[in-house]
Order: sequence, then C-alpha cells, then structure tokens
Amino acid sequence: MDLENSLAAHLSQITPPNMALAETAAQREASLAKPPGSLGRLEGLAIQLSAIQSSSRPRHENKLMVVCAADHGVVEEGISPYPKDVTRQQIENFSRGGGAITTLCRTVGARVLLLDVGVDYQFEPNPMIINKKIAFGTKNLAKGPAMSRQEALKSLLAGIEVILAQPELDLVAAGEMGIGNTTPSSCICSVFTGLSPETVTGRGSGLREDRISHKVEVVRQALEINKPNPLDPIDVLAKVGGFEIGAMAGIYLGAAIRRAGIIIDGFIAGAAATIADKLSPGLSRYFIAGHKSQEPAHQAFLDHLHLRPLLDLSMWLGEGSGAAISMFLAQCAVTHFNEMRTLEEARIADPVLGLSRQNQ
Amino acid sequence: MDLENSLAAHLSQITPPNMALAETAAQREASLAKPPGSLGRLEGLAIQLSAIQSSSRPRHENKLMVVCAADHGVVEEGISPYPKDVTRQQIENFSRGGGAITTLCRTVGARVLLLDVGVDYQFEPNPMIINKKIAFGTKNLAKGPAMSRQEALKSLLAGIEVILAQPELDLVAAGEMGIGNTTPSSCICSVFTGLSPETVTGRGSGLREDRISHKVEVVRQALEINKPNPLDPIDVLAKVGGFEIGAMAGIYLGAAIRRAGIIIDGFIAGAAATIADKLSPGLSRYFIAGHKSQEPAHQAFLDHLHLRPLLDLSMWLGEGSGAAISMFLAQCAVTHFNEMRTLEEARIADPVLGLSRQNQ
Repeated sequence: MDLENSLAAHLSQITPPNMALAETAAQREASLAKPPGSLGRLEGLAIQLSAIQSSSRPRHENKLMVVCAADHGVVEEGISPYPKDVTRQQIENFSRGGGAITTLCRTVGARVLLLDVGVDYQFEPNPMIINKKIAFGTKNLAKGPAMSRQEALKSLLAGIEVILAQPELDLVAAGEMGIGNTTPSSCICSVFTGLSPETVTGRGSGLREDRISHKVEVVRQALEINKPNPLDPIDVLAKVGGFEIGAMAGIYLGAAIRRAGIIIDGFIAGAAATIADKLSPGLSRYFIAGHKSQEPAHQAFLDHLHLRPLLDLSMWLGEGSGAAISMFLAQCAVTHFNEMRTLEEARIADPVLGLSRQNQ
Repeated sequence: MDLENSLAAHLSQITPPNMALAETAAQREASLAKPPGSLGRLEGLAIQLSAIQSSSRPRHENKLMVVCAADHGVVEEGISPYPKDVTRQQIENFSRGGGAITTLCRTVGARVLLLDVGVDYQFEPNPMIINKKIAFGTKNLAKGPAMSRQEALKSLLAGIEVILAQPELDLVAAGEMGIGNTTPSSCICSVFTGLSPETVTGRGSGLREDRISHKVEVVRQALEINKPNPLDPIDVLAKVGGFEIGAMAGIYLGAAIRRAGIIIDGFIAGAAATIADKLSPGLSRYFIAGHKSQEPAHQAFLDHLHLRPLLDLSMWLGEGSGAAISMFLAQCAVTHFNEMRTLEEARIADPVLGLSRQNQ
C-alpha cells in the first residue's frame, strides 16, 4: 500500500467524540455537590473528555508526551540564536531526564518518549529514543521544498504509528525539539491564516530584535519560492514544514484514533494541530489547548482552530512544556468529575433563592 | 497574656523573604538548560519560593490546605441562594472526601484540615475536623458588629495556632466554607479599597441577578451602621468580617512565621489576605495568587495587594479550589528549578546570535 493510501486508511478510523456521552456527563456535572458551573473550565473539560473517551467516567491515568525531534536546513539562514547541534544536545539531555520537559512530565506523571524523525545526528541506541529518522534534517525551505511529499507522508505516519503501538492512553501530547522550527511554523501559519510574514514571525527561542526582520524575509522568500497550496496540507508540510511538525500532526491523528484527549502545546504544536485538523476536519474537537505561548502568532493558530487556552504563564519554551503542565488541569477535570459526591449523595440542600450563573 | 499581646508576639516573628537567596536563585534559573525566561512565571515563582523558604533548593512536598468553616448571621437577610445549614452539610461532605476541595487536594497531593471556628452546629468528634469554635456563627452584620474585638482576635489566633502546630510545611493555602461569606468579604473590600457597595458586590455562590441589588443594600447598611475603621484591620474583621475569614488571615500569618509559600484562593481568601497584610505590612511578598475568581471584586483585592493571578479558569466555587489547583504550578516551579540540568551540566552550546527576550 502506498503512503497516501496508508494515511487515508488511518484517517478513516477517526470518528467524532461521542455527543450522547457529553450530554450524560453534563447532567452528572450539574448534579455534583457544588453550585453548577462554579468549577468553570474544569467542567467543560470533564464533559469533553467523557465525549472523547466515550466513557461516563473519563480517565487521566495514562498520560503520554511524545517529544518529536528533527533538524531544519533553514538554520543556515541564521534564523535561530542557537546552533543546530543543540537539537541533538537537548535530546541527549532529555534522555537523561535533565530537560524542562522531562522534569515537568515527571511532575505531572506523564510518560515521555523521544521520537527522532530527522535529527542531524545518529544517536547511539537508547531505550528512550525511538528511531524513525526520515533524513538528517530538512532542506533549506528558503531555497526550495523542505522535503518531498513522500517524506511528509512518512513523518505523519511515524507519529501515527508510534501512538498506535502504545498501551492504554488517556491523555496525549506532542512536544518538540528542533532548532529553527518556529520558521516553518510561521510559514505554515501564514499559509493557513493568510496573515503576512511580519505578523506570523516572532522571536522563537529568543532571537535578537534586530534579527527579526531577516527572519521575516526568510519566511516571505520560503512562501514565494515554494507556493504551498493551502488546500493540500501535505503539500504545505512538505514545502515549508519540518519532520517533527509532521510527526506531531501524526501523533494528534493517532491519538484521535485511540480516543485519547489531545493536549496542544504552543506555537509549533499549533502548526502541527492545524495540519492535522486540515487532514481530518473536526479533529479539533479532540483538542485541549494547553496554554498560550508568548510567541505572538500562536494566537492566530488558536483562533483558526477555535481553541481557548487553559493557561497563560508567559511561557515560550516549547518542548511540550505548556501541554505537560496543563495535563494536570485535565487530571483535575477528571478527578473532580469522578470522585465528587452528588448533592443527593452528600445530602446537601437545594438552593432557596435560585441559581443563575450557570445560565449566563 | 491578653489576646492583643499574643497576636503581637506572633506578628513580631514574621521576617521578610530572604532577598539574598532570591539573587542566588535568579542566577541558577538563568543557568538552566533552556532559553532564560522561557518558562515564564514558573521562573519567578521558583525564585520567590527560594526567598520565602530561605533555601537554595525550595521544596513543595509538604502541602497543606486548611478549610476554615463558620456561619454568618447575615444569612437571615437572604443574601445567599443556599440555606445556612449547607455549611455543616458541606463540612461533613468534606470530612468524607466527597467535596470539590477534598478531591482537588487529593489530586495535587495536599493534606486537608477542616477548621471549625464558628459553624452553627456541634460536630461529632472527627479526626479531620479541628474544633476551635468561637461561637455558633457571627451576628447579623447588617444590624451591628458581626463579632466582638476579642472574638476577632480569637479567630486570627485560631488560624495561627493551627499552622504553628503542624509538622514541616512548604506550601500552605486556606480555603473556606461559610454560607453567606461573600457579603462580609464585599464589606471588607469596600472598607480597604474605597470602592462602592455596588462595585464590590457580586453573585457569590450564584445569587439570582434580581437579588443582587438587595445584597448591595445589605453591604451598604453594614458599612453605615458599623463604620469599620480601615486603619484598624481587627476592627474591620470584628464589625463586618467572619470567623473563617479571621482564621484564614491567621493561617497566612502563621505560614509566614513558618516560612512557607502561601497560595491565595479567590474572593474570600482575598479579604483574609488583605487583613493579614494590613496586620503585617509586606506579608504579601509571601503570597502567590492562585487564580482569578469570577466574583468581580476579586480583582480589586488582587490589585490592592499587587498580585497577579496564575490561573484564570472561570471558577467561582471558593472552598480553596483555585489555590489547590495552583499548588501544582508551585510544584512545577520547584521541580524544574531543582531537577533541570544547567547548560553546562548538559553540555549545551551557548547561543550564537544572542538572546533578548529575558531582557524585555
């Protein structure tokens, strides 16, 4: 079976969240021993997770973070403050548990996998690093396509296959490590939202203010040379994407097949989530926007996907860090929903003067 | 020793956070294997907790939530949608682990104590309920002082003494259960901020829109009849406060004596935190604002204390629920700070084009 058909076969397995269970869950939520609506967004999250997992008692126990790693030919244009080798260095740091993402995942109780789909380095065999390397980094998207269409399909399938190979999954997030990867994400943002290169380009991992205009020009040139077709998300991924971005999109698709809640991280995750939602329209109903990144165009992806982020902690690290933290909010959504008594069970009196906030 | 002297003796033990350790912590934070500043508010939180705990490696392991409970005579004015007996019903529910606050504390790993300082019910002996009952509820503050000055002092001392009796403490929060307690909190807000009764009065646990104007009148009347002195926080607490509000303020004072990080919940906690900060000016440097409540005047307390909330999840439950959830953010602040490798330890290259975001 060729790669296009493989992808199509996977996509055909995605079904919408179970709206009948959402209804049941909303009834239970309203019956719990608190004023209805008073737990705010945790309540909607519990209902969403019930519908996604198609369960009257959603689960959070099996949390997975897949950090997708790849290098980017466009780094040669000087668009990142960090040298390319930092991708490898950080993956090695993560594999020893010393990174931000590994620390945060340990704190929230999420398992971490490192997925190499294109790092410019041959890692020694390591039980934490899954090797699905497609190439030793993308080509320079400012001069031509970042990758071939076949490679784009491979990156999507890599993410899907990793997820389908896992044991039980309740909440899934994708993180990333790839020096230079805000540049392809800005390109993807411009293609799908129609916003200008100036609007979609930010500082990434901390580019100096006086280097931003150059980065804007690189984004503009990439779009002009490659002319990605916004109606063909695989074309966009191939021409101005990255291997780890494709793998992240694949992880989201795989997680929907597995009916797990999908926690979206920041800007690069937003690019991957948008591609995934274009490949499987409506997929965003599986999405939980973990946080709002400081990278300015992240909001454009959130708006495009009609997502409202849970956290705004002024973070701009990437790696999946915002998603890792917000997994705890999904956990709170699940635990209060499953473990609180109802008003009846707790023998708590009904209101006498009427409640109204839930009707706002 | 009389109660005023007892309180003064406790207050004299509070010292400011250790700013030399804040400096050391900021240096470590900048050396970790990530772009400096990229973990946003988690970084400042780690530095603050270092200074509060006076430790180069802050801790989160010992988390305590004290839910302070009391009844309010003003409930007879019809300012709450719930009957007074729900205070007792919910404390019994909490004592069996069936409440929102007990569920959330279990999820975040915080120990829960229930502190009865004034519930209108004599509980059976229960290992989870600490009995420091001052009276069976306050008097109706719309008709005269809610309590005597001696009772106000007793409520503050009850909170302090509970905290001083605990084993090791790293993070402390106070929650509350007291049907009617947004009315005294609105009075306290008006006294200290100068805002009008209309501005400081909201729906509490879900009062119907058409009952709000009556609640505003109750607040106005309470302020007119009692004339609380904004320069004397004990006078304010006595005339228009509540026993659980005094106990919460005492918990904050006790936690500062113990050099624990103090997580502030929503509107009622804001009232207690303001009283505590008036009693010990500068105490707010120990405060971490857990979340922004939907109760509109909560922002007035946050502004008054110069606090910026960590979470905004559209919650308005109280009980300590927002503080419980944000304890996890304090935990993430501590774990990333203590457990991440430095750039040097991880052998990660320095930036080549310079980083700027941390200088913003």
